[in-house]
Amino acid sequence: MDNQQLFENIKSKKSFLCIGLDSDIEKIPKFLFDFPDPIFEFNKQIINATQDLCVAYKPNIAFYESQGIQGWESLKKTLEYIPKDIFTIADAKRGDIGNTSGQYAKTFFDTFNFDSVTIAPYMGEDSIAPFLGFPGKVVILLALTSNKGSQDFQHFTDISGKELHELVLQKAQEWANPDQLMFVVGATQASYLSKIRNIAPHNFYLVPGVGAQGGSLEEVCKHGLNDQVGLLINSSRGIIYASDKEDFAEAARIEALKLRDQMELILASKNFI
Amino acid sequence: MDNQQLFENIKSKKSFLCIGLDSDIEKIPKFLFDFPDPIFEFNKQIINATQDLCVAYKPNIAFYESQGIQGWESLKKTLEYIPKDIFTIADAKRGDIGNTSGQYAKTFFDTFNFDSVTIAPYMGEDSIAPFLGFPGKVVILLALTSNKGSQDFQHFTDISGKELHELVLQKAQEWANPDQLMFVVGATQASYLSKIRNIAPHNFYLVPGVGAQGGSLEEVCKHGLNDQVGLLINSSRGIIYASDKEDFAEAARIEALKLRDQMELILASKNFI
Repeated sequence: MDNQQLFENIKSKKSFLCIGLDSDIEKIPKFLFDFPDPIFEFNKQIINATQDLCVAYKPNIAFYESQGIQGWESLKKTLEYIPKDIFTIADAKRGDIGNTSGQYAKTFFDTFNFDSVTIAPYMGEDSIAPFLGFPGKVVILLALTSNKGSQDFQHFTDISGKELHELVLQKAQEWANPDQLMFVVGATQASYLSKIRNIAPHNFYLVPGVGAQGGSLEEVCKHGLNDQVGLLINSSRGIIYASDKEDFAEAARIEALKLRDQMELILASKNFI
Repeated sequence: MDNQQLFENIKSKKSFLCIGLDSDIEKIPKFLFDFPDPIFEFNKQIINATQDLCVAYKPNIAFYESQGIQGWESLKKTLEYIPKDIFTIADAKRGDIGNTSGQYAKTFFDTFNFDSVTIAPYMGEDSIAPFLGFPGKVVILLALTSNKGSQDFQHFTDISGKELHELVLQKAQEWANPDQLMFVVGATQASYLSKIRNIAPHNFYLVPGVGAQGGSLEEVCKHGLNDQVGLLINSSRGIIYASDKEDFAEAARIEALKLRDQMELILASKNFI
């Protein structure tokens, strides 16, 4: 899926919401354990309840991997269940080199048929290049994350005042065009967004941290929108764990709808729709 | 396993060799496809042929993950097969935060019972902290890697002349003691090793890049040894793919023995043995 297609989907759904499927066996409603694959059943019901409200789903791979073989089966079924016009993100934060990265690319793009995968930049171009050989697939590179530890290294500054995350944004654009490359930019650091948007004007950003982590949707949009919207706002726990009872899917829909409604207002105010 | 135990194993085996189990379904000898689990059979024969010559095995997780469910089964059997006195490294280069990192820790330390796992530092302390809650387990943090792309970000330099990888070495030592924390330091950058050893004197380093990638064992040892040896020299392809015929395990033994013999000379010359 290229940026133009994603933009069209955003306009038609009036939403740039990404729902994070951080489906934790210890947090899903207990009645789901009566089903043969509780994690898949949870995801299926969440997808049924929200698929008209979001343009992307982002399974957090750690939660599947930690369940061993059963987890990979739940993930595979989930991917097959997500409607094909919805952008899928493997939140795996992989970062390796050469043939190893090639193996990861094969896993997520071939075996599971994800549209995109999140990648860590520390090892440089070698971590990204093997993923670019898959036509139509997208690398989502960590730039400025929303967690406390983002302060440890991502703001490391050179003599010219350039910060590490800015160097990442610059260099990566030499390696891939905006249809192949998105960036993770945390909502909790909205004050940096204008500068980041100047450095990477044409890329989509995957934005975690709105809601539960304290980031503001309005602030993010004020500084982060581009002429194709250019933002995928992720919410995970705030939606999928809105209730731990039998009504969890309806509760998820209500929370997703709140965000979608805010997004619709923003899209209308900026004349996208 | 703490550093002292590892040091004792090194002295008794006269080796600080780590063998990388980058067991690629496309590269293993074809006759192994007659076995029900070709990857496990490959690893088993490599382990049988080399376990007296090395102190660590490092499965490269990408090669297992890319095989889907079958790959995780091969990995689990491999881990169970490795003798318990040999240090095991999950080369996974994970880097996430909070409960996600907690899930990865659970996968590698509980589900698979690895002794250690490689971690990427980009997201800061949050990526490492959840792994430190497992007594006796070790985090191996990427510092200066051996690949070409290490030039892209790891040498980014602040106004005082400090490079990013040096900041990683410094900060991480505030988070974990040397028994819980090793660093990846590539052999291809041996000129940096003296400076790195000054910054992190007591930590073990996992050193890829000797041999196939052009790093010199002598140079690495000259600058990198500490009073507990402090180095695990990794070789993967140079050993496990020494032959693609039925004699692959014997050929692997011959290559491992060459490295072990060089290591024995170095250990003797430094009066470790």
